[in-house]
Amino acid sequence: MISKPIQIKYIIMKKELTFIGLVHSPYSSGGEAPPQGSSEMCEIEIFEQYKEGLKDIEEFSHLHIFYWLHESHGFRLMVKTPWDEKTHGLFATRSPHRVNPVAYAVVELLERNGNILKVKGLDAIEGTPVLDIKPYIPRIDAKATARIGWLKHTRFPGKK
Amino acid sequence: MISKPIQIKYIIMKKELTFIGLVHSPYSSGGEAPPQGSSEMCEIEIFEQYKEGLKDIEEFSHLHIFYWLHESHGFRLMVKTPWDEKTHGLFATRSPHRVNPVAYAVVELLERNGNILKVKGLDAIEGTPVLDIKPYIPRIDAKATARIGWLKHTRFPGKK
Repeated sequence: MISKPIQIKYIIMKKELTFIGLVHSPYSSGGEAPPQGSSEMCEIEIFEQYKEGLKDIEEFSHLHIFYWLHESHGFRLMVKTPWDEKTHGLFATRSPHRVNPVAYAVVELLERNGNILKVKGLDAIEGTPVLDIKPYIPRIDAKATARIGWLKHTRFPGKK
Repeated sequence: MISKPIQIKYIIMKKELTFIGLVHSPYSSGGEAPPQGSSEMCEIEIFEQYKEGLKDIEEFSHLHIFYWLHESHGFRLMVKTPWDEKTHGLFATRSPHRVNPVAYAVVELLERNGNILKVKGLDAIEGTPVLDIKPYIPRIDAKATARIGWLKHTRFPGKK
């Protein structure tokens, strides 16, 4: 499948991102944040101009958070993780050093106060820009029995 | 919490996205694709220069796919969905018309042939640019009992 014409078309397109808010986190650098699944509480401050878009969000127990890893610079296609001594392809890992530094986490929504969301499970540092929030819907998002590949035979915590 | 200085710092930052591949889909326009969770097969073609990053990905049964909704233009903060007659805040919906047109889906990985991933569950049209692929890890990603808020009392299929 050769997709050259389409590929060229999109490379010249403008791809602009807008930050809709910021994370307020107890972590101030990447070294402090846990590699997967923080148990700390964070606050997500949504900028005033987007606040209306939060209506009804407090009815959901979990949210998808998409954020910009503003301190991630560069990537390698083969990476070593904290979980074993082998290298794996970047797209078979959750390394924060990616081609596009867009991070993703499922968080528990504890409370909403106006434009501030208090959440649990976000490993992001203070000042991390937020790109999007979507409601978590188990029917389409939860795959409880998914196979975890190479992670199964490693130190990865809580694997099954 | 006043974050003005941080906000200004990031607004002037360069936020550049790189497409790592393209979707090949039986759908050629947004009107054809189902609103949530396609059962059709799609192929994701990863560009040759990123192929190495796919190593070991075939060991995972499910993947997170992040893609760019290149035909989505503009957004509203209050939206009406196919599921009921009320309007809801954008961030409490999965509307494709978002502040940042970054879409997200969990797909089942059926097969990998070199730089081509055959997947099920992606509602994307032919030629959709791909931004990132991450392995699905149930311990951190699956929240089977999450509450689905306003969707519970609507026509949303397969709700619980």
